[in-house]
Amino acid sequence: MPFSPAHFTTERRLDDGVLERDFVIDGIPGTLWTPPTTPAPLILAGHPGGLQSMHPRLVARARSAAASGFATAAIELPGSGDRDPLPDVDHARTELRAALASGRPVTEDIIDRLVLPIVDRAVPELQATIDALLTLPDVDGPVGYSGGVTAIGVRLTLVEPRIAALGLFAGSYLPRATLQEARKVDVPVHVLMQWDDAWNDRQRALELFDALGSQEKTLQANMGGHTGIPPHAGEDAGRFFARHLGVALPQ
Amino acid sequence: MPFSPAHFTTERRLDDGVLERDFVIDGIPGTLWTPPTTPAPLILAGHPGGLQSMHPRLVARARSAAASGFATAAIELPGSGDRDPLPDVDHARTELRAALASGRPVTEDIIDRLVLPIVDRAVPELQATIDALLTLPDVDGPVGYSGGVTAIGVRLTLVEPRIAALGLFAGSYLPRATLQEARKVDVPVHVLMQWDDAWNDRQRALELFDALGSQEKTLQANMGGHTGIPPHAGEDAGRFFARHLGVALPQ
Repeated sequence: MPFSPAHFTTERRLDDGVLERDFVIDGIPGTLWTPPTTPAPLILAGHPGGLQSMHPRLVARARSAAASGFATAAIELPGSGDRDPLPDVDHARTELRAALASGRPVTEDIIDRLVLPIVDRAVPELQATIDALLTLPDVDGPVGYSGGVTAIGVRLTLVEPRIAALGLFAGSYLPRATLQEARKVDVPVHVLMQWDDAWNDRQRALELFDALGSQEKTLQANMGGHTGIPPHAGEDAGRFFARHLGVALPQ
Repeated sequence: MPFSPAHFTTERRLDDGVLERDFVIDGIPGTLWTPPTTPAPLILAGHPGGLQSMHPRLVARARSAAASGFATAAIELPGSGDRDPLPDVDHARTELRAALASGRPVTEDIIDRLVLPIVDRAVPELQATIDALLTLPDVDGPVGYSGGVTAIGVRLTLVEPRIAALGLFAGSYLPRATLQEARKVDVPVHVLMQWDDAWNDRQRALELFDALGSQEKTLQANMGGHTGIPPHAGEDAGRFFARHLGVALPQ
């Protein structure tokens, strides 16, 4: 993919000194948050799509990461927000909701058609995002991936050597193919799961952790439901990235 | 049980300022480690028995706890060290080793006969230890239980209201009865397990975590084998006790 720079469209300084900038790379919208002290290692924030609706949660994650010395970037997912729709994915999502509504099992076929087309498109876009953002004076390597859409994080880590640490939130539907790809992951991994997550397949999450090929991997499970991750769990994830992305935290 | 004071037999100041004292309570030997700053909340250190052979690892745990502001105490387990032998338990241990040596499965019956008699005896002894040590000017409540012999930690937490936080190392044989008792545990619990622990029944450890009745419970799994717990896992366990035993750690 030819290199494309980031075009910044907005710039806002938050009260805690974090600089929030919306950008466009190759026509794909995204947001970059940088801490007061730069250059800062970059963490790509995974999310289920919809930058606008996810903004409050993404800002909270970016502020927390900035407090630990990290820059955070998120791009709009293929088919989400203002991007061109992906009719086949939308159809799979409709099937998923129908299955959930009627209590029918969510088949592997539905999960594959819902997740894999997004993974195939999002991963090269995230690589282009890394290319563009690492040219900025206030963003530095190494790079981490953090958060949901586990299938994107696993695939990106496999194909992108600049990913030095992988933080996963095992709360999304996981294609079987991702379990196979996970065996080839060899960077340090921190897997966060909510034990009582109504939307999560606990057994599949444990299979994912077992499959990960990394010598250094940590699974942390807590209570509180899908969105009830306790504060200490977020702090532990921050310390994981600090250990592996070379940021010195006060102990 | 009538109150019995602790008779101290030795006293040694370690290079990091930790005071190590051997004691006897009701004829049961133990060791108390207190940090330079007291009074300090007490953590009872679980171990598989044999205070002398376990001493290097117990001292390391006590030094680490002292650095976080905690006092640590360990008593000799029934049937271990210089204490009167428990022939039935020794017989079960012989059966266990024979089963392991011949590749036969370790039956629930062997586990029950190996663990439960020790639990029945050790728990009231640990309660007497709390009674005695909390009268000392440099030891304070609340009290935590940390470490191996999960069955002792679970039973003690059920019967002893002074236990405010329970840290378990899921690396020991677990009687079925302990899974039932775990459902009644309601204090915050931190369960540490080694995912690739050759001596640990991974499924039983996950059943234990699922069974625990506590609203606040955390499972952390790492790699490195039975004795290869990574440093950050020990630090996370220390932060768990700091949150629940009221010690302020630098963040």
